[in-house]
Amino acid sequence: MFTLGIDFGTNSVRALLVRCADGAELGSAVSNYPSGEQGVLLDPRDHNLARQHPGDYLVGLQRSVRAALAAAKRKRGFSAEQVIGIGVDTTGSSPLPVDEANRPLALDPKWRKNLNAQCWLWKDHTSIKEAARITALAAKHRPQFIAKCGNTYSSEWFWSKIWHCLNVDPKVFSAAHSWVELADWIPSVLAGAEMPAQIIRGVCCAGHKALYADDWGGLPDKDFLSRLDPKLAALRDRLYEKAHDATVPAGRLSPAWARKLGLPAGIPIAIGEMDVHYGAIGCGVAEGVLVKVIGTSTCDCGVVSAAKSVPDIPGICGIVRGAILPGFYGIEAGQSAVGDIFKWWVEVVCGGDAGLHARLTRQVGKQKPGQAGLLALDWNNGNRTILVDQQLTGLLLGQTLYTTPAEIYRALIEATAFGARTILERIQEYGVPVKQIVCAGGIAEKNPLLMQIYADITGCTMQVSGSSQACALGSAISAAVLAGAHRDFPSAQKAMTSVKPRSFRPIAANARIYDRIYRLYRVVHDAFGGVNKSADLSGVMKELLAIKAANA
Amino acid sequence: MFTLGIDFGTNSVRALLVRCADGAELGSAVSNYPSGEQGVLLDPRDHNLARQHPGDYLVGLQRSVRAALAAAKRKRGFSAEQVIGIGVDTTGSSPLPVDEANRPLALDPKWRKNLNAQCWLWKDHTSIKEAARITALAAKHRPQFIAKCGNTYSSEWFWSKIWHCLNVDPKVFSAAHSWVELADWIPSVLAGAEMPAQIIRGVCCAGHKALYADDWGGLPDKDFLSRLDPKLAALRDRLYEKAHDATVPAGRLSPAWARKLGLPAGIPIAIGEMDVHYGAIGCGVAEGVLVKVIGTSTCDCGVVSAAKSVPDIPGICGIVRGAILPGFYGIEAGQSAVGDIFKWWVEVVCGGDAGLHARLTRQVGKQKPGQAGLLALDWNNGNRTILVDQQLTGLLLGQTLYTTPAEIYRALIEATAFGARTILERIQEYGVPVKQIVCAGGIAEKNPLLMQIYADITGCTMQVSGSSQACALGSAISAAVLAGAHRDFPSAQKAMTSVKPRSFRPIAANARIYDRIYRLYRVVHDAFGGVNKSADLSGVMKELLAIKAANA
Repeated sequence: MFTLGIDFGTNSVRALLVRCADGAELGSAVSNYPSGEQGVLLDPRDHNLARQHPGDYLVGLQRSVRAALAAAKRKRGFSAEQVIGIGVDTTGSSPLPVDEANRPLALDPKWRKNLNAQCWLWKDHTSIKEAARITALAAKHRPQFIAKCGNTYSSEWFWSKIWHCLNVDPKVFSAAHSWVELADWIPSVLAGAEMPAQIIRGVCCAGHKALYADDWGGLPDKDFLSRLDPKLAALRDRLYEKAHDATVPAGRLSPAWARKLGLPAGIPIAIGEMDVHYGAIGCGVAEGVLVKVIGTSTCDCGVVSAAKSVPDIPGICGIVRGAILPGFYGIEAGQSAVGDIFKWWVEVVCGGDAGLHARLTRQVGKQKPGQAGLLALDWNNGNRTILVDQQLTGLLLGQTLYTTPAEIYRALIEATAFGARTILERIQEYGVPVKQIVCAGGIAEKNPLLMQIYADITGCTMQVSGSSQACALGSAISAAVLAGAHRDFPSAQKAMTSVKPRSFRPIAANARIYDRIYRLYRVVHDAFGGVNKSADLSGVMKELLAIKAANA
Repeated sequence: MFTLGIDFGTNSVRALLVRCADGAELGSAVSNYPSGEQGVLLDPRDHNLARQHPGDYLVGLQRSVRAALAAAKRKRGFSAEQVIGIGVDTTGSSPLPVDEANRPLALDPKWRKNLNAQCWLWKDHTSIKEAARITALAAKHRPQFIAKCGNTYSSEWFWSKIWHCLNVDPKVFSAAHSWVELADWIPSVLAGAEMPAQIIRGVCCAGHKALYADDWGGLPDKDFLSRLDPKLAALRDRLYEKAHDATVPAGRLSPAWARKLGLPAGIPIAIGEMDVHYGAIGCGVAEGVLVKVIGTSTCDCGVVSAAKSVPDIPGICGIVRGAILPGFYGIEAGQSAVGDIFKWWVEVVCGGDAGLHARLTRQVGKQKPGQAGLLALDWNNGNRTILVDQQLTGLLLGQTLYTTPAEIYRALIEATAFGARTILERIQEYGVPVKQIVCAGGIAEKNPLLMQIYADITGCTMQVSGSSQACALGSAISAAVLAGAHRDFPSAQKAMTSVKPRSFRPIAANARIYDRIYRLYRVVHDAFGGVNKSADLSGVMKELLAIKAANA
């Protein structure tokens, strides 16, 4: 028996066929989105804008699934008839406007070329003003709405985006019967939903992005939405009353889509979740197991049994019941830029390419902790956790007249590791146990040096996910549980996930040096982050020089 | 009538023939030192070491003077007989050991190859431990000794160096009859001094580098020196009792050297001073006129009438009566790295060359103040004024994922300008008037963009010295006054110095933006510099982003 996981990323969609018994990956295929710049529709006049054409998803869906099936069929013992379920994950919050027939406005020739009628990609930041207004109104009238997301509602999220659409393009807003997260819309298409009311919405996007919580009766109440705009209050009736965790199916595969994909009609479709959440499942997330997906940015996912009460954790962006695993609170944290910082340093500042990345990495490998006397903050794209503040920027200190690009490169890697340690300490301090860390993502797989630095700085052993397609694997696991191949998520994960043989244990001598530097990182972090408004920084540079002298 | 100024720099010596009536430069020649790396003897095992072979000075002296005379003779109306005086300036503190005949030990075949027997160049930092020990002992027993140099005795200075020689090479120390600053030794050679007791010492080096002051009877007392080492106390008798300002001649040109140089024997030789001090005179320093020599580092020189009392100015390294102009207190301040920081950024970090310097400078010229949201501290080589702390390092903040190398280049230029403003505000606060600023040095001459930024940030008009050889010109002016061509320094300076026609006035709109950024600079400066040990930095990044948004 097999399930299919489909992962809609920022530039492409990947389909992965997985054996339910052991997680073996029989076939995999990637299809790039045809439109825009690597699949992203941009506006040269506004670098905050990032949209996607919904038609790209449907083309990519069919191509990637067909290709994955074709690859799997070349393996012995596989036939498409044995596929028992489908799971879908996507980026988020990526809402799109749909008409009364659940058809994206952007597929209507009338709106085809209107950027506001497309899917509003997660990284679209056009709604900064709306986000600030929502934050301010919630702080005043509904503080509970934002208490679990660091008291800041983001411009990346659902309500900011659709309100911005209403403000800048009311015709598109009026033409939309409803708005739907991509993670919910793809399953609804596969299930043949012919009107928005038939879409089964997941609590993952709803809880993390749309202020949904059972505590206050679902989505924000109409009184509150009216304070934003009465038209948003009116829209609430055409959204949803209830959002679901992964125990509830998103539907069953429609005959039409079964034909298009070459799969059995009627197989169950798992609820849609955001990519990192299903990715966490694919990495084996469980109580005590923290998953870090390390790429251009980093996302941390953990879970705590819903039988316990989880306090609000200051600076943690999302604590949502059922968001990752049913029966658990999903806890999400993150760093706004990780790989992006390294890319900035090597490509934008040093003017290099992949070759320079490799050369600097080799040089970094010859350096010892502390020997350069540098300290950086990882805030080039703001700070998501634990400060929840986009209005922060990067910092580097300790440079002399001899400081090299490779030393700064290492300092930036260390900065992201110090950021990771800050998150780790914060969640542990509030009772979230962390006994094991499993990493996934391109950087975790390809950069053992970085993994060792992370181990040395956090003092935790770093394991790496056995699958390179953790998100698609997690979707396939959700489908496998839903289809009955395993009795629950823990047993499915035990059977279907793994970690790579090579793990990264802290080296005691390095950890001791990094403990000293981390204390300095926190002094600078707290001072510029506003945690400590009477900071004594007079010793920071001298202490770094002392560490440098001791490790020269 | 003409005088000759001879400027001994780090890599070469320059001779300049000047007409006393109007400062016209009739002939000029440079001779590079033949030994070592561009004239500097290095030790590959110790990058703190920098020495020079004294023989190089004598070779360079003869070559440069002969060539300058030859050039001048091609002009109408000049003959060597009309040269009425010689002035000499050198780097400092650059002491060398001499024997009983005033001959450098390094010219004795026995010591020829011993690095400790050479001239200890100003930038030699091998004496860090001795400097710290002198600072500590003075703080305890003779606080007045270091009160006028920021309470820190430097490893670059006279006593640190010769004590280090005693510690690491007692044979050289024992063989030395005396030690003499290069600025005093060259005039003594020209004057034919045949024993160290005949050397006329200048108060410029003595006061700034050797803790000499009339207030406490000249050099440090023997009791104090005995606390360092009894052999230093014994050496005191073979140094000097009295050091002099520029009213006292260093001697008259000996027949032997008159022949070697092709000049009239018996003409007066001005007292030796350090290059920037005679450079200040060559730029027209006077009460109210601050001179900035901007090169790899920056040196600021001002004077205050000795009729007034000058308070100790916290963080100002040297306030010495007669050090620059007779009858005035000479005040010296500085920034440890200026051009060196730009060189580090372009060459070490960006891996570029002169072409990249030019390209980045062009890009910087297109940027507006504040538009990059960056702020840097100019401490890559520590901070000389006003913090007097070598144990400080560089800092850059405000970087995003889009920050370019040219934006950082501009931020570094601005950082050095903020450092300059900090010095300016400090001396003005303590009653040193600044009505005019005259800049000299390679950067001041070649980088109008930087000069404009300095004007915008300091709020002061920046003028540039009319002579590119301000140090040699100052030496020639001192000789002209001594020889009676002018009745005093002010009238000599009025006749012989000038500023270039193009000056740089503050642009009001830029100055307003920079006032905002300077306030942030001071917040960060004071926090990391230990001035404010309960600093609120929480608004720094946000304010920079606000300035950026307002000037995008």
